[in-house]
Amino acid sequence: MLAKIVHSKNMNANIRKAEYAVRGELAIRSEELKNQLAKGEKLPFSRVVGCNIGNPQALDQKPITFFRQVASLVEYPELLKDENAEVASKLYPSDAIARAKLLLKNIGSVGAYSHSQGIPHIRENVAKFISERDGYPADPSKIFLTQGASAGVQLTLQMIVENNKVGIMIPIPQYPLYTATLAVLDANPVPYYLDESKGWGLTTRELQRSYDEAAKLGVETRALVIINPGNPTGQCLTIENMREIVEFCHKNRIILLADEVYQTNIYQPKDRPFHSFKKVLKSMGPKYEGFEMISYHSISKGMIGECGRRGGYFECEGLDESILEQIYKISSISLCPNVQGQIMVDLMVNPPKKGDPSYEQYKKEYDDIYYSLIKRASILEDTFNSLEGCTCNSADGAMYLFPQIRLPKKAIEAAKAAGKEPDQFYCMAMLESTGVCMVAGSGFGQVEGTAHFRSTFLPQPELFDEFCSGIKNFHADFMNKYRD
Amino acid sequence: MLAKIVHSKNMNANIRKAEYAVRGELAIRSEELKNQLAKGEKLPFSRVVGCNIGNPQALDQKPITFFRQVASLVEYPELLKDENAEVASKLYPSDAIARAKLLLKNIGSVGAYSHSQGIPHIRENVAKFISERDGYPADPSKIFLTQGASAGVQLTLQMIVENNKVGIMIPIPQYPLYTATLAVLDANPVPYYLDESKGWGLTTRELQRSYDEAAKLGVETRALVIINPGNPTGQCLTIENMREIVEFCHKNRIILLADEVYQTNIYQPKDRPFHSFKKVLKSMGPKYEGFEMISYHSISKGMIGECGRRGGYFECEGLDESILEQIYKISSISLCPNVQGQIMVDLMVNPPKKGDPSYEQYKKEYDDIYYSLIKRASILEDTFNSLEGCTCNSADGAMYLFPQIRLPKKAIEAAKAAGKEPDQFYCMAMLESTGVCMVAGSGFGQVEGTAHFRSTFLPQPELFDEFCSGIKNFHADFMNKYRD
Repeated sequence: MLAKIVHSKNMNANIRKAEYAVRGELAIRSEELKNQLAKGEKLPFSRVVGCNIGNPQALDQKPITFFRQVASLVEYPELLKDENAEVASKLYPSDAIARAKLLLKNIGSVGAYSHSQGIPHIRENVAKFISERDGYPADPSKIFLTQGASAGVQLTLQMIVENNKVGIMIPIPQYPLYTATLAVLDANPVPYYLDESKGWGLTTRELQRSYDEAAKLGVETRALVIINPGNPTGQCLTIENMREIVEFCHKNRIILLADEVYQTNIYQPKDRPFHSFKKVLKSMGPKYEGFEMISYHSISKGMIGECGRRGGYFECEGLDESILEQIYKISSISLCPNVQGQIMVDLMVNPPKKGDPSYEQYKKEYDDIYYSLIKRASILEDTFNSLEGCTCNSADGAMYLFPQIRLPKKAIEAAKAAGKEPDQFYCMAMLESTGVCMVAGSGFGQVEGTAHFRSTFLPQPELFDEFCSGIKNFHADFMNKYRD
Repeated sequence: MLAKIVHSKNMNANIRKAEYAVRGELAIRSEELKNQLAKGEKLPFSRVVGCNIGNPQALDQKPITFFRQVASLVEYPELLKDENAEVASKLYPSDAIARAKLLLKNIGSVGAYSHSQGIPHIRENVAKFISERDGYPADPSKIFLTQGASAGVQLTLQMIVENNKVGIMIPIPQYPLYTATLAVLDANPVPYYLDESKGWGLTTRELQRSYDEAAKLGVETRALVIINPGNPTGQCLTIENMREIVEFCHKNRIILLADEVYQTNIYQPKDRPFHSFKKVLKSMGPKYEGFEMISYHSISKGMIGECGRRGGYFECEGLDESILEQIYKISSISLCPNVQGQIMVDLMVNPPKKGDPSYEQYKKEYDDIYYSLIKRASILEDTFNSLEGCTCNSADGAMYLFPQIRLPKKAIEAAKAAGKEPDQFYCMAMLESTGVCMVAGSGFGQVEGTAHFRSTFLPQPELFDEFCSGIKNFHADFMNKYRD
């Protein structure tokens, strides 16, 4: 039989080399286990818990009621007709009905293609949100709605990467979207390291080292990715640090790409509040006029967690007009971001206000999730720090902890024999024994010779103690099995 | 002032050279005109009519009620609770409620990331649909749900294009998604021409010529794109012709990419019914076992027209296992197709059945749109054929007509003086004078020296006569102005 026309050896090699650990081997195995449980097979656990990915509603986080009411109404405009008003008012509050009417007036139908850049009415609301958040104006014509922040990151990186000499600075550890996208584009990741011993802090000295080393290799660095709050690390940058980063980029002529999707997941709001890079930049005065920056936001995270809907936006600051036109053109080839995702962006940036009929419920739902996340982050951090050979920084923000584990030599040898990285081996053992799916640190990048893993703290509050004790028991057994 | 870090000269050159006429200069100008009208400015027309894009609901095509009822219910699961059952039953039929419950049982929440390949339950329904349509089995593990067919086409082409020697055969005229995607991938479009004088027919002799010429230039042709029913041409292939195409691909070791998004837009169902390439392939016997093919479908077209939602799927036939794994990996980097789009795929492949409470209404809505499209296609065809210097083939299928216009020399000179292609010049004049936005043939490709344009026949039935007479009047004025 002839070989296939396209196979792994003659396909796009850049795709072949891309890796995305968050949905890699561990996630695939966890799907198999889930299917086995569904078929009634007996396993050492009764449920698979996906801590590999920030997917709140998959772990039963309730959606914000008001948001879903509006989404439900725009789907079925019959409900908004006068003849149905009385019955509809029994199921939907008046402000949800008013919002749905306003949206449909501006959109027409959620089934129609919208403007490729996103619905103008919604981009105006995003601009208002940004200017209220930062105290500096925002321009709807520089905002692009997207199918989630990932799509925005992919699109803008694709725009910037001219050829295989271009480098993009990325943090290590990083969210693997970045290395995967750079692999597909055949661009050079230029790694800078976050300092675990200083709460995953970031120094400009390290940025300069990273930049200079790449330059020596002939790499032309064009952009720098900052994830703030950090993923997988959870750190939240100080305003002073952010200013240094802007100065560094300005001095070295580097575009700043600010991934700010966790901007409301802030767990030390007094010590480590969130500041947007846009605000910090604007506060730095006329010297930085025209500084090129793109910042990304999403409906997937925060207390909203509507990630299955694929919605988000990015704001361009200081970009050349020709580049904005090209971004529009490339967006138009994919026609438009899905309209329900765009609507959720509208709701995120313009939620019920004090005095609105839905405000109290919205506020309660939002706060309940928020305070519960703070609590769960702290319990899980304590759990990790109680494990033999394990240390874990606090999460200032985001949805993850990224503890370091020091594995016994025997475990490292067993991993080698199995053809796996030590942390991958550890995570696979945890999955097989507890049903908990995490992601090995090697998927994010880490200092050589160290081992980490990333876990969300999203499992349900009522199951959280059981979840933590499962990890503890597994870890003790694992260490006993492989103790040197 | 320093130049920007990234500008049109040092950006990704492949993006720069991509063109997408459907949302190009004419569409951008039509947006400006729309804004002028909204501000109350006086123009020669009172509304802008977007015939540049198959966007049915933007032209007031009503969505299928049952589909929207289910979409509305899954957004707001409170409606499905027992305590709301009585009120909900006044707004939603029982089969919509049952379907929403079934979907949520299989999905969890529409706000959660799903399986990157698409929700297993929905892929199973797609497989059932395909096997009932074709009479041959389909495998859910070879089906990928996508954010519209465009996303599927982009993903699979990206997979296939190994380097800049690879060629992909595309019809001329073609839907510009293909040339744009190939430009971004730096691959070679290998054009084969459809024969306008034979109703946009397709011969294997022309396919072979196209293939051989590319081979002489060192291009390695890996795949062939067929759009059936055709876009922009509207032709529908005979089963004999389809067999020849499969043979041609098989002989030359070319993957067949079958864009079948217009499979239900069939206007001569007796003479020119739709056959899927999957069915034709399977009917050809064991010689074609393992033939590599991908076919695409979408919720955007047909009588559904839910394009703003971004949903679709592709089915892989005969692909190497390693390629399927790579498709999964690359899909996982973008996490998942939006869940509401996936739900609409479920509804498309599994609509109400005879005897279901919603069946009669579904059938009526579907048929009303269908027969109205047939009627409007025919009226617009007659209109075009009545214009001086204009000839137009019938539409067997799809949503477009693609007439040829023979422009006077003076018009061609005026176009040249304005720096435009003659057909672009003609379409711009039509837009400025009537508010009707079409797309020039040069955006799709055409035999050199000819001029065409593409128009949907989607304007509202009640406005259709006015729409057609507007075109007639404009054309007469244009010809009088430029008559040689």
